[in-house]
Amino acid sequence: MTKMSNSIHETSANLKDETKLVQDACSKLVNYFNEIRTPGALTQANGLKSPAELRKVYQEAGVALSLEDGSPHSHDDIMKAIDLTLENSVRTDALEFHNQLYGRSEAPGLVGQYVTSTVGGATHTFEVAPVFTVMERECLDKIIKVAGFPQNSDGLFVPGGSMGNMYSLHLARWKKMGERFKKEGLYNMKPLAVFVSSQAHYSYSKGMSFLGMGTDNCIKVQVDEKGAMIPAALEEAILKAVQDGKEPLMVGATAGSTVFGSYDNYPQIRKICDKNNLWMHIDGCWGAPALMSTKPEIKALVEGFETADSFTWNPHKFMSVPMQCAVFVSRHENILEDCNAQRAAYLFQKDKENTEMDMGDKTVICGRNPDACKLWFAWKMTGDKGWSERVDKGIDLARDMADYAINGENFQGKFQLVADVSFTNICFWYVPKSLSHLDPSKVKKGTEEWEALHKVAAGIKKVLQERGLAMIGFQSVPLDKSNDEAYPNFFRMVVSGVAQLTASVLRKELDDIARIGEELYNDEIASQSTIASGCPSRQTSSRQTE
Amino acid sequence: MTKMSNSIHETSANLKDETKLVQDACSKLVNYFNEIRTPGALTQANGLKSPAELRKVYQEAGVALSLEDGSPHSHDDIMKAIDLTLENSVRTDALEFHNQLYGRSEAPGLVGQYVTSTVGGATHTFEVAPVFTVMERECLDKIIKVAGFPQNSDGLFVPGGSMGNMYSLHLARWKKMGERFKKEGLYNMKPLAVFVSSQAHYSYSKGMSFLGMGTDNCIKVQVDEKGAMIPAALEEAILKAVQDGKEPLMVGATAGSTVFGSYDNYPQIRKICDKNNLWMHIDGCWGAPALMSTKPEIKALVEGFETADSFTWNPHKFMSVPMQCAVFVSRHENILEDCNAQRAAYLFQKDKENTEMDMGDKTVICGRNPDACKLWFAWKMTGDKGWSERVDKGIDLARDMADYAINGENFQGKFQLVADVSFTNICFWYVPKSLSHLDPSKVKKGTEEWEALHKVAAGIKKVLQERGLAMIGFQSVPLDKSNDEAYPNFFRMVVSGVAQLTASVLRKELDDIARIGEELYNDEIASQSTIASGCPSRQTSSRQTE
Repeated sequence: MTKMSNSIHETSANLKDETKLVQDACSKLVNYFNEIRTPGALTQANGLKSPAELRKVYQEAGVALSLEDGSPHSHDDIMKAIDLTLENSVRTDALEFHNQLYGRSEAPGLVGQYVTSTVGGATHTFEVAPVFTVMERECLDKIIKVAGFPQNSDGLFVPGGSMGNMYSLHLARWKKMGERFKKEGLYNMKPLAVFVSSQAHYSYSKGMSFLGMGTDNCIKVQVDEKGAMIPAALEEAILKAVQDGKEPLMVGATAGSTVFGSYDNYPQIRKICDKNNLWMHIDGCWGAPALMSTKPEIKALVEGFETADSFTWNPHKFMSVPMQCAVFVSRHENILEDCNAQRAAYLFQKDKENTEMDMGDKTVICGRNPDACKLWFAWKMTGDKGWSERVDKGIDLARDMADYAINGENFQGKFQLVADVSFTNICFWYVPKSLSHLDPSKVKKGTEEWEALHKVAAGIKKVLQERGLAMIGFQSVPLDKSNDEAYPNFFRMVVSGVAQLTASVLRKELDDIARIGEELYNDEIASQSTIASGCPSRQTSSRQTE
Repeated sequence: MTKMSNSIHETSANLKDETKLVQDACSKLVNYFNEIRTPGALTQANGLKSPAELRKVYQEAGVALSLEDGSPHSHDDIMKAIDLTLENSVRTDALEFHNQLYGRSEAPGLVGQYVTSTVGGATHTFEVAPVFTVMERECLDKIIKVAGFPQNSDGLFVPGGSMGNMYSLHLARWKKMGERFKKEGLYNMKPLAVFVSSQAHYSYSKGMSFLGMGTDNCIKVQVDEKGAMIPAALEEAILKAVQDGKEPLMVGATAGSTVFGSYDNYPQIRKICDKNNLWMHIDGCWGAPALMSTKPEIKALVEGFETADSFTWNPHKFMSVPMQCAVFVSRHENILEDCNAQRAAYLFQKDKENTEMDMGDKTVICGRNPDACKLWFAWKMTGDKGWSERVDKGIDLARDMADYAINGENFQGKFQLVADVSFTNICFWYVPKSLSHLDPSKVKKGTEEWEALHKVAAGIKKVLQERGLAMIGFQSVPLDKSNDEAYPNFFRMVVSGVAQLTASVLRKELDDIARIGEELYNDEIASQSTIASGCPSRQTSSRQTE
């Protein structure tokens, strides 16, 4: 036999050392988990370091972020790198994080994520992922039931809501155009028009580009004062598209829009879709959990959801399982495989055992993370009632916060809502005393007053972040005005991952915003020592107390 | 103020209980990590349960896989569910798992995955993922350097290699067609033709469908006896496409094909691409790590890799960081943002701090898992030299195994290679004595002999799995024969995740295959008790010894 190098008879790493690394890391992470879920924990984050500052911190600790030098590092260095990463990352699980539509993972979801990470594998075939495949089917069946969809609906966990929305575009055109589209592409067809509200997520537009359908064919329909698509405007838009030589394909509705949390009118949209033979998709990435609310006025918002052709729903958002966990469902039985199967011989051999559950050929990709596992663990421990309670609590928390902002004694009208609370989205301005003569919803863009109001949210946000008091997004997206007539920047708070969240935490954030506002805009108050202070540093682990 | 429900003043889960759940889960997972990386550990897996059998096991333990009943479960039930999931999942990290192009995560990568799962967040903006964003940039820079690409190359971690290959299609057409394509879609254009080898991954074809370009426009080019695209055949295919009224767009080359591990000839393909003004992409999802080999004949295989317009590389395959970790790189500076940016106002506000590193608008999706973190940890601990050693060791292990199969004293020629070992892919038939008069590479499909040979791999694989001895893929994909003239099923072994792997483990697998083959095809030997036996059950945790 040929002589090979000796290395093939030796292991390249000591298993005991490897196990110790995993063990030591876990013990740090368990501590981190516990620490950051208590009020004020965001204050321990290491402020607002620039990329250069971050690089310096790692460099000085002997584990440069740069990989350029390429030398191997020790167990202790890796432990140091874990500490630095925990200290310098944004604590999206802290109670004061509301910057994105996710945060505050609960334990069972996290544990499910650990399990999949440790077991490994991908859910292309039952053969390599038997448990995860059944868990995926069970989670889909549950979600299909909650959504009121037919029992035989098709579905898939997908890498994010944008991909889910793209699946709807892809299936809708396949259903309309059939195999010819799949084989020949879009080249010799009439442009397919897709209709979404002006408040819809930008993934519809990105999807139109990626799927070769053109962003110009993603037609934005006007919304009402609640941020819901106006049915009459939709009908007009469809007519116009036909006049423009386009073939209407799909309405991309929204359940819980990104900024205002608004819900479209599904029964009306369904009627219009039926009349025009259109696919009706609902982007419920953020707002689909409203389906589990016990509140009549919230149930009313999602009336007709069950009539859609497809929907997306991201449990990694409101339901606080760790990123990434996103679901796509279509009511049309077996449509995913019919549309997407390529039947790669090396992977989907029918002469293997138990291939009837293989899900890999339903997808447009190949390997997928077993993202259902974490949702399964979360659902198993939380239970149906637990989810309903969380949804209702989130809505109550958002309403309480809006109420406190408007009616709180100390604020004297400094907070103004941009729109009514919808689902758990609260959009508001903080208006400093010096600008209190202005109505931020009416001030004209380009004026000095608009500019002054526009700067407030960014200024306050920066201080909130520097002091680690809260992290809250802002934007100037208008409710159906042209870009020339946008609202000045306003805060968008979202309440998600509510298990450890209480009203007092949220109210304190409004107190902090008001105090920083006073500090930035009324110097005489800033000089008092009542302001939430503190420049948290890596060295101190004590929490802010006020 | 309005009165809200009391729940807003209470937490919905006890933090101490939550922490205990994470802690207890971690301790189980650390044990699992340690146990399954020792020889024979695949035997502990719970055999080949059908979906119904799996459901029964969970049901009997009181934590049904079904979520239908929706009642909440206790800490202890969740712990039971973790045990069952570890017992009944396929141990892709076991030394005997070679069914897919991944497996055997090493500790630092796993630790990096735990860190991102625990910290949470997505790499859309620097603001919410400062450390992960810098890590992503650093990993990209490192990979760009290893690939010999220009320093200013653009790149992104993407959800899998299929998505990476789709990015190449998307960018190539954007570069050729510009903004008109982005706005108007493909409707009024000549069909764009893409050329891949007949051994290329099926994601090219899926991508052509998903991106609206049509599977018929994905043109398969003939390969040579090594599985590499024949340059002259490529030139012919391009000519023919032009004659057919198509517009040639891109060559999708491969580095390490899925079945045979073959590499296309990049210098020749580059020349043809230059001559025809085509984008040259390399799917290096599996075989790009060859770039880190110190072996001259392997370096020769990847000559010219650095001249591509783009490539994909999945560290979750050979480099054994946990799923999912996939990289896309293009040499064209800033092309990802130029092509994909939608500049959503609510997310990418330029009035925030440190926005120059925001990566979210480069993608066609929105939130992304911070998949760079695990690669960063793995690279930091392994070092450049460690990767080179692993690649060389993997290649040596594969060669040793092929050598042992062909020259091993006990096998008497029962193993036959389908092709030479390339990278770390070993494709072979086991030919039972009763069929030893047949040449499996020449036997005609449809004949009784072909059928008899075809059944061997599936039959042996099933017993290997039932006894938990090894898990090795098989298929009948031919090397450039039509589907009517396919090779009978053969085993495809891949060697990846080599840190704990040694030649003796792999040789034993061949011994097991041969023994099972004898058992299945020569009854007189089967009656002896020399056969590796054992039907592992959940109750026994002792390992197979022979």
